[in-house]
Amino acid sequence: MNVLIVGANGQIGQHLVDVLKEEGKHTPVAFVRKEEQVKQFEDKGVEARLGNLEESVSSIKEQMSDIDAVVFTAGSGGSTGYDKTLLIDLDGAVKTVEATKASGIDRFVMVSAFQADDRDKWNEDMKPYFVAKHFADMWLMDSSLNYTVIRPGLLENEDSIGTVLASDSMTDPDSYSIPRVDVAKVIAASLDNEATYKQSFDLVTGKDNIKDALNKL
Amino acid sequence: MNVLIVGANGQIGQHLVDVLKEEGKHTPVAFVRKEEQVKQFEDKGVEARLGNLEESVSSIKEQMSDIDAVVFTAGSGGSTGYDKTLLIDLDGAVKTVEATKASGIDRFVMVSAFQADDRDKWNEDMKPYFVAKHFADMWLMDSSLNYTVIRPGLLENEDSIGTVLASDSMTDPDSYSIPRVDVAKVIAASLDNEATYKQSFDLVTGKDNIKDALNKL
Repeated sequence: MNVLIVGANGQIGQHLVDVLKEEGKHTPVAFVRKEEQVKQFEDKGVEARLGNLEESVSSIKEQMSDIDAVVFTAGSGGSTGYDKTLLIDLDGAVKTVEATKASGIDRFVMVSAFQADDRDKWNEDMKPYFVAKHFADMWLMDSSLNYTVIRPGLLENEDSIGTVLASDSMTDPDSYSIPRVDVAKVIAASLDNEATYKQSFDLVTGKDNIKDALNKL
Repeated sequence: MNVLIVGANGQIGQHLVDVLKEEGKHTPVAFVRKEEQVKQFEDKGVEARLGNLEESVSSIKEQMSDIDAVVFTAGSGGSTGYDKTLLIDLDGAVKTVEATKASGIDRFVMVSAFQADDRDKWNEDMKPYFVAKHFADMWLMDSSLNYTVIRPGLLENEDSIGTVLASDSMTDPDSYSIPRVDVAKVIAASLDNEATYKQSFDLVTGKDNIKDALNKL
């Protein structure tokens, strides 16, 4: 499959490009916001397309030709305000879902946030962010797309551990964190794993290898 | 009907309480955030209930006993940040919808924003606000409730004009504004007007009396 990675220049996105290239099963296509990012990916031999989540659905759709699956791992990040949370994390995600549908693409993997499905568990300081992620997830799950919603725990930059726990309702896991590279590996492993179709789940470091963890969903 | 007005202390909310009292057909019940606001309404002979849209769905639901219709006209306002836009205008509205459903109440009138249904028409500076209103509206319209979504134009504090234009897709109206008191009158007139059931529409000052304008929907 040709996999469009929306937010390819983010930390998880960059790992995902590398994981897909290494595995060789699917072809990553980077969706990025800046010309210089296009060049950076092209220098690595990865096709890159220029797009902006603040633009229209049709302009996003223009970057989806010959794409078989879309991964949304973009985010406005911690250094911008909640205006961008509304525009990127919520509306940008939903516009990407709409563009995917309009393109006739069926497969969509969303990178969400830990326990974004359950208001009662939202950290007080981060609540507005969880609102945005929650409604983007709900929008996707309510669409006709074949979705997977991955809600990783605290993201860390350490090396791959390679074993995870994935569950739709997680209580008291041994770990609440996960290396970003392992999130990328789970995305890659989810793309054509039927056990993840129309599933949403929290994801942290755990005891199972990734394939086994996903097959338990 | 007993009509719970969420945001009764806002400018449209206060007009709506007065309009309903004057008309005498329905009974307003004010849903407000502060103890002193409860007292202000009670002093005017209006039942008031204390609730907070940042609290849980079940705590909002607790204020919905003996209620037949819910009007949502709350907003975080221009003096707070977009964190509150996410928490109140979006999640607070959706939690109110969920509490309404959980209470077995069928009728819900949402006060939205002019052309919140159409991304292409959103004012650049106000875009994050429109994102929040748009998704709250969509959530309501996608629920099983008997909704009316009213999207008024520029809100003014002048006296009632009393004639309006209501349309689901408005292009080039004579006026882009409407007195807040006329929005309140349209809400009141919508409550049990079947022509407004499961309808959403832009609303500005126009040429028809309110009943005729609504019956044209």
